[in-house]
Amino acid sequence: MKPSSRTLADLGEARFLQRLRRVIDPPRAGIVGIGDDAAVFPVSKGSVLLTTDTMVDGTHFLRHWFRPEEVGHKALAVNLSDAAAMGGGPQFALVSLILPGEMPVHAIERFYRGMRRLARRVEVAIVGGNVAEGPVLSITVSLLGTFPHGDPVLRSRASPGDHVFVTGQPGWARLGHRLLDRGLGRRPSSTGRSRLRRPDLWRERRSTAVAWRRELARSSPGATSALRRFLAPEARLAVARGLHLYRPTAMVDVSDGLGRDLFHLAEGEKGIVIDRNRIPLSAGFKRLAEALGEDPEETALSGGEDYELLVTLPPETAERLGSRAVLSGTPLTEIGIVSTDRGVWHHRGDTPRRLSPSGFQHFRSLRSP
Amino acid sequence: MKPSSRTLADLGEARFLQRLRRVIDPPRAGIVGIGDDAAVFPVSKGSVLLTTDTMVDGTHFLRHWFRPEEVGHKALAVNLSDAAAMGGGPQFALVSLILPGEMPVHAIERFYRGMRRLARRVEVAIVGGNVAEGPVLSITVSLLGTFPHGDPVLRSRASPGDHVFVTGQPGWARLGHRLLDRGLGRRPSSTGRSRLRRPDLWRERRSTAVAWRRELARSSPGATSALRRFLAPEARLAVARGLHLYRPTAMVDVSDGLGRDLFHLAEGEKGIVIDRNRIPLSAGFKRLAEALGEDPEETALSGGEDYELLVTLPPETAERLGSRAVLSGTPLTEIGIVSTDRGVWHHRGDTPRRLSPSGFQHFRSLRSP
Repeated sequence: MKPSSRTLADLGEARFLQRLRRVIDPPRAGIVGIGDDAAVFPVSKGSVLLTTDTMVDGTHFLRHWFRPEEVGHKALAVNLSDAAAMGGGPQFALVSLILPGEMPVHAIERFYRGMRRLARRVEVAIVGGNVAEGPVLSITVSLLGTFPHGDPVLRSRASPGDHVFVTGQPGWARLGHRLLDRGLGRRPSSTGRSRLRRPDLWRERRSTAVAWRRELARSSPGATSALRRFLAPEARLAVARGLHLYRPTAMVDVSDGLGRDLFHLAEGEKGIVIDRNRIPLSAGFKRLAEALGEDPEETALSGGEDYELLVTLPPETAERLGSRAVLSGTPLTEIGIVSTDRGVWHHRGDTPRRLSPSGFQHFRSLRSP
Repeated sequence: MKPSSRTLADLGEARFLQRLRRVIDPPRAGIVGIGDDAAVFPVSKGSVLLTTDTMVDGTHFLRHWFRPEEVGHKALAVNLSDAAAMGGGPQFALVSLILPGEMPVHAIERFYRGMRRLARRVEVAIVGGNVAEGPVLSITVSLLGTFPHGDPVLRSRASPGDHVFVTGQPGWARLGHRLLDRGLGRRPSSTGRSRLRRPDLWRERRSTAVAWRRELARSSPGATSALRRFLAPEARLAVARGLHLYRPTAMVDVSDGLGRDLFHLAEGEKGIVIDRNRIPLSAGFKRLAEALGEDPEETALSGGEDYELLVTLPPETAERLGSRAVLSGTPLTEIGIVSTDRGVWHHRGDTPRRLSPSGFQHFRSLRSP
């Protein structure tokens, strides 16, 4: 048997865990990492945050779309995004895997390498986790963070008069999803999906398996950005840190889609009014959306999994920032205002109309048509 | 449709989460709980522990063996046990579920009630979590704890001359597993398991579904204890706290089985010598083991999932405790000593013989014959 085709079941749990320890960074001084009953590390007095998110094969990712490294990256990134949206600094992660016995060991190692690369970059220590056998590959990351730059920023604390900003260009991830779903100009089936076999990027030889992905990236201008944003999103940690100086009143990350996530900021005795003319639509984004037959504005509003941030700033600091700014290298666009009328409203310079949360279809990576 | 037969897919994610909030305790003052991007709570300066464990339907539990409340209890208890084995006090938990859409909502609520009952008893706050859709019911609990009673107790710090103790009666859980596996005197199939249909305790009406379990509990003297220890184990938190006064040098919980877990204490430049005559074998345990055709001593050594503790104490405090003691209501039995010879050794008053880790079959709840 070639080493590369060895499965988890071939290797056995004990030897698999030994191999994993070589992939995961050894614990820093003062930290008890993998190998004891629990991880132990020091914290300073103050608040900590704890968050968790799960990715399930077939629900949140598909093995013919995502390379193992990308799943490792994304499973950590979605948790980093939750930490960023609280104004926190992520520090320690636990990784719990459910793995089918027939999973190739090299794919799991590639998964961990993708996660490790991101963890090193954002200085998060992977201090422990768990490996369980089960029929469906699933990843749960739990993340602990602290608040070195200021108090936690909750989603409920916006006040009427605050200005609403969004980072970057929401909607890219949706275009990446569309590209993968349509494939390479193959004849779609009656459900709108290609029926042609696509390679399992977790099993097949790297060179063969990524060829179609490379081709897809070259298929349209902007395709590379869209694919990257869907397959390996970046959490907006740096801009969240930079925003502390502007005393944000509320913050939330855009995981369900801009339209739906605005409702989180509108909870309580207040509402949000957005100006549709201000929704960021970059030239490259518009070009790709139109090439894919999508309405750019609708895509920006309803597309999810971008992991951009929605933030409210008090009027004084909002004016200081300006309505189109760049902070820590990330564009920030003012798109609306917090009002006293409950709900989420939109206008184009005319009378605001009320939005219904069901007006934005929930974007589930693998379910949308 | 009767409310009790409603599934997760019928109810939809948003309404399901609303219902869950009624089942989970509201956050205490000063804590941000379920509903924001992450949970936030205060900690004192010092060390914290973080641990996680996963239970997968079909691997770690079966729905015709475990009631939903028991799975909720056990998913938390196995994490509490890891905290106890570090000498830590558990404080905050996150609960991540993977749920099939056809899962009845009332079963998930019962799952949470079982977990909540235990969480309240040990004063752990469930501060957040995640619900994801997927084909196989899986539960990952992550637990944060602190060290209010002393320093962390690692598994690697035993020294030659220390005395080795075990809490309670290891092996009970294995007998509970045996009882469930054999069922009620039904004719076993060629694999040794009953082929007769047993009820899915997550779907059927409570009264019908638990009847066979009640009958099973009555089938042998000691059956109730054995079933409880397998289905709803208790973490040894109180005795772990009490042990701090005896300055434990190393501690580990017995999840894989006494024989296998002794190897964790023997890691490094030392070994463990156990006296087989001292392995605790209570009268009730022996009676049930023999009724089930099992060797009591072998069951105590190889049975897993008991969540007892193995602890090493320095000679001074070991003598103060005595070789058969009761601490915080839990029996503690001295079973051996830490030696300078690497490995795990056993004797019956004669020359010690070396044990091999493979000499103890790993006990996987649902795999053992």
